[in-house]
Amino acid sequence: VVARAAVVVTGTEVLTGRVTDRNGPWLAEQLRILGVDIGQIVVVGDRPADLASALRFLTSSGNDLVITSGGLGPTADDLTAGIVAAVQGRELQLDPELEQQITRIVERLSAERGWHTDPESTAAATRKQAMVPRGAQVLPPVGTAPGLVVPPAQGSGPPVLVLPGPPAELQGMWPAAMGDPLIQAALSGREELLQSTARLWGTPESELAATLRAHRDELDGLEITTCLRDGELEIVTRYSPDAQPAYARLQAALAADFAPTLFSADGATIDEIVAAGLLGASATIATAESCTAGLLAGRLADRPGSSAYLLGGFVTYANQVKQQLVGVPAELLETVGAVSAEVARAMADGARQRLGTTYGVGITGIAGPGGGTPDKPVGLVHLCVSREGRALERRIVVPGSRAHVRARSVVVALHLLRELLAS
Amino acid sequence: VVARAAVVVTGTEVLTGRVTDRNGPWLAEQLRILGVDIGQIVVVGDRPADLASALRFLTSSGNDLVITSGGLGPTADDLTAGIVAAVQGRELQLDPELEQQITRIVERLSAERGWHTDPESTAAATRKQAMVPRGAQVLPPVGTAPGLVVPPAQGSGPPVLVLPGPPAELQGMWPAAMGDPLIQAALSGREELLQSTARLWGTPESELAATLRAHRDELDGLEITTCLRDGELEIVTRYSPDAQPAYARLQAALAADFAPTLFSADGATIDEIVAAGLLGASATIATAESCTAGLLAGRLADRPGSSAYLLGGFVTYANQVKQQLVGVPAELLETVGAVSAEVARAMADGARQRLGTTYGVGITGIAGPGGGTPDKPVGLVHLCVSREGRALERRIVVPGSRAHVRARSVVVALHLLRELLAS
Repeated sequence: VVARAAVVVTGTEVLTGRVTDRNGPWLAEQLRILGVDIGQIVVVGDRPADLASALRFLTSSGNDLVITSGGLGPTADDLTAGIVAAVQGRELQLDPELEQQITRIVERLSAERGWHTDPESTAAATRKQAMVPRGAQVLPPVGTAPGLVVPPAQGSGPPVLVLPGPPAELQGMWPAAMGDPLIQAALSGREELLQSTARLWGTPESELAATLRAHRDELDGLEITTCLRDGELEIVTRYSPDAQPAYARLQAALAADFAPTLFSADGATIDEIVAAGLLGASATIATAESCTAGLLAGRLADRPGSSAYLLGGFVTYANQVKQQLVGVPAELLETVGAVSAEVARAMADGARQRLGTTYGVGITGIAGPGGGTPDKPVGLVHLCVSREGRALERRIVVPGSRAHVRARSVVVALHLLRELLAS
Repeated sequence: VVARAAVVVTGTEVLTGRVTDRNGPWLAEQLRILGVDIGQIVVVGDRPADLASALRFLTSSGNDLVITSGGLGPTADDLTAGIVAAVQGRELQLDPELEQQITRIVERLSAERGWHTDPESTAAATRKQAMVPRGAQVLPPVGTAPGLVVPPAQGSGPPVLVLPGPPAELQGMWPAAMGDPLIQAALSGREELLQSTARLWGTPESELAATLRAHRDELDGLEITTCLRDGELEIVTRYSPDAQPAYARLQAALAADFAPTLFSADGATIDEIVAAGLLGASATIATAESCTAGLLAGRLADRPGSSAYLLGGFVTYANQVKQQLVGVPAELLETVGAVSAEVARAMADGARQRLGTTYGVGITGIAGPGGGTPDKPVGLVHLCVSREGRALERRIVVPGSRAHVRARSVVVALHLLRELLAS
């Protein structure tokens, strides 16, 4: 059997969406690497009753380990240690050695950062952070807060691993946590779990479903999940090492049915494929963007080393700037309009020629919510990717919000670039 | 009492962190606007038992409404309707009218997008999506999947509102869902909950904590959460209408202690403040970006109507492009280097002068992970915002990842722009 863990993320700022949780996904990935299955991530606010009920649910749902992140700080809304102690049936007590350790850390930090701290409130904050459930294992602080491993006082429930909220502290404490004997015992007997990813561009989900149904009997032992994101259909499969032949059969079925759209059989992302293509061809690229206004260039620069191919680009938001910066002819703007295949082509060629690059990209569209007409509705985007002597053009109409139209346009541009690089 | 809701987000791709959940935060915000309190968000994978146990937990934890997102697609891992039916004690049955409706939608989409679909697999997929729990209310599809309102067959538990996973579909279905009589009954008798936000730029969290401690006795009835994001310290307060005087006291305390850094007392975001400043001054703007490579221009274009002030910009990634596009002198690049206050200034002025705008912004830095030196470490970024006769410059060293350095640089540029607009 595979060991199972669950995660509780605390913090009203996460629950209300003001902050994106980075700890849940990071912990899920670390657990996957260890071969531990993750079943649930529960996000709760800074309210004692909600945290307690989430912990009671997860410690009684067949998990071998429950991990909490956050709520260990010095302020009054940081309640995790006390609630974990209560749920596991243990009392909080002061750990004098830990109190001294935290005092030394705070003194060092205050000196380094030039904080002017009030001694009394610092002592109170330190004392709060040094309160530990009786019988719990303390993990040394990475910031100022210690981690905790808290087994149940009675019965056979899982231990609760209490980690700090700041991602750098949580990640820094992870090796010590995984080395703790109680955690190791909880996760012992685990089996390795593999994960592989394939990606399709332009196949509807229903077609993939038909292939999976047709091959159902050959795919025993695979946990296949599919999801559509940014127009890409992603197939992630988890399986134990003995199911590797079944995964090979899935790969063969995908290759047989979807050869034209299977752009990534090995999990490579479109960004990685485009970067490898440009590097492999020693090619350079320049962009000219209207509705996306720099998002494609920004994404091309996401990867370290992107200066090897990205020389620069143009944000040509106003029509007059399209003329001035990339030489779109005024008469084109007057006759066919800024959102047209011709202007996208002129932008791609103009960017390429002005910067002397191998490839040029032009994107022009109506991101909305205003500006649509019956002929040219909101969501209409024209894209062009060109090199000397060859160009690929695409017209798309993207439903949904302004942000969605712009994000999708960037992905379509990357796929056009992939096609042109491969041709 | 305040009505309470909980959310279940389904999808192994969310659980494992490959996709960031956008539905939980969006639903939390919509519920807040309606005065409904959200207690938990649970993320589960595409496993029947995990979804069922999460639903049993949330329907028995004092919630007035439980909302699910995702798992309504045509593939076998899309299981939500069946599991919600089972948990609520109802059988799934085919809704023939809904089946016809989905058939028409799929035909239209296939025609529009040029999909080549196999009739048999399309029919199977449609039939799956038209399976509805007996006695449930159907919400019309926005994409191809219908929504559902599923009350318990027996007993007094909350209804489960089943929404699709793609954010555009979920958001499009929300008004119909909130108009459903069962949902309205579940949330009736709710009390309004107010939420106000203030934002500081440049105050450490510990100083804010000290102010909150000093005024603790005057702030009864306020649920205050603070969080630091992108360098902004955000203070979100929730309170019932009778606690409005206490919120006024908090506002007064913030204004007294943090006047120089309190850039938003009314919740306005830095993007809104900058947009209003540019519109109010009938000013225009152009950007020249190196390490951020278009992310600032892209963000300035996030808002509808941004063409009133954003004329365009330059992505000047290569040094030679900095010279060519915005006229950075070659000798400056040789003497002080591309990452310098002088080059940031030349980029801001060059962008402004080339496009004839009121404001120009220049950003040049070392996003890492490579390229750092002892003098110019990874994370060093020089920024400049200029207009005719006046410029503001800033040098920052941002710790953390490449993505973090670039994101923080964009926010710093927006704050510099706010300062220059106000001066």
